[in-house]
Amino acid sequence: MRQLKLSRAFTLIEPGPVVLVTTHDVGKSNIMTISWTMVLDFTPVFAITTGDWNYSFTALRKTGECVIAIPAVDLLDRVVGIGTCSGADTDKFAKFGLTAVAGKIVKAPLIAECVANIECKVVDVVSNHSIVVLEAVAAHIDATRKEKRTIHAVGDGTFVVDGRKFDRKKMMASKLPPGL
Amino acid sequence: MRQLKLSRAFTLIEPGPVVLVTTHDVGKSNIMTISWTMVLDFTPVFAITTGDWNYSFTALRKTGECVIAIPAVDLLDRVVGIGTCSGADTDKFAKFGLTAVAGKIVKAPLIAECVANIECKVVDVVSNHSIVVLEAVAAHIDATRKEKRTIHAVGDGTFVVDGRKFDRKKMMASKLPPGL
Repeated sequence: MRQLKLSRAFTLIEPGPVVLVTTHDVGKSNIMTISWTMVLDFTPVFAITTGDWNYSFTALRKTGECVIAIPAVDLLDRVVGIGTCSGADTDKFAKFGLTAVAGKIVKAPLIAECVANIECKVVDVVSNHSIVVLEAVAAHIDATRKEKRTIHAVGDGTFVVDGRKFDRKKMMASKLPPGL
Repeated sequence: MRQLKLSRAFTLIEPGPVVLVTTHDVGKSNIMTISWTMVLDFTPVFAITTGDWNYSFTALRKTGECVIAIPAVDLLDRVVGIGTCSGADTDKFAKFGLTAVAGKIVKAPLIAECVANIECKVVDVVSNHSIVVLEAVAAHIDATRKEKRTIHAVGDGTFVVDGRKFDRKKMMASKLPPGL
């Protein structure tokens, strides 16, 4: 996986894909499936909705670190599987045949099988809305991966995969952030 | 447009489409394009990232109301156009040939050309992160519209349209909210 410029990392989250969020605490790594995410700033800063209902939340709060990994459609069944069992009694890396790779800055692992991985630090928790605010500190992309189409959760048990692309860079020029 | 059960409204936002947000203040309706959105709760509660940089923000704060309209891909150029001009000097409904329709509860208008419209009330503003928390109070869907594929902004001036669908309802059964 090669490093991705941090100024481009928000382009991984803005389209709204389902993501996998890894944590690492007391020698144990875990993964949760999250589809409630949002970009807050180009710098980049992200919000995710999570709380006590996710086993990973305790590690996330305690360590203040996580990795947002972006799976492609060939991982769909593993993404659903990860979202429907708990790290309390499951080693999800082992169960789902995923490879934990050391990141550059945080202790939470990257997932080798994903299209991209964003190392993040928790900068705030807005408890009354269950929002965790994350700042990206490093980003990695697998440029050699052929299947790059990401997955969008509808929320009713169905999913939509990326389809056709449209380029509107010229029309958008006045609104694009510098350094992209 | 027929009414959509409120318990299903989060399924319009969870996949991460670009949305149009309408407001209405002092006899004037406006529209902004927003791609930074997130589901916060199934009830449904949504977060959007916005602030003083959007002309609509003043009306949103003052009236405490808006409509989240979901455009399909045939509206892409209008969605980009709406996002690259300002309501300060533009009547966007007129300029982009969109039809304002009265909602059921809020004064902000529905957009007739969109796939769906969600009437919302502001329940909180998390100012330090520019997050506006919205509670949906009514939802409408155009069941007769043929083109329903929504648009996902990448953030670099390119867009990805909904592609193939996958059904994983059986695998997800334990995690789906009641009343869907």
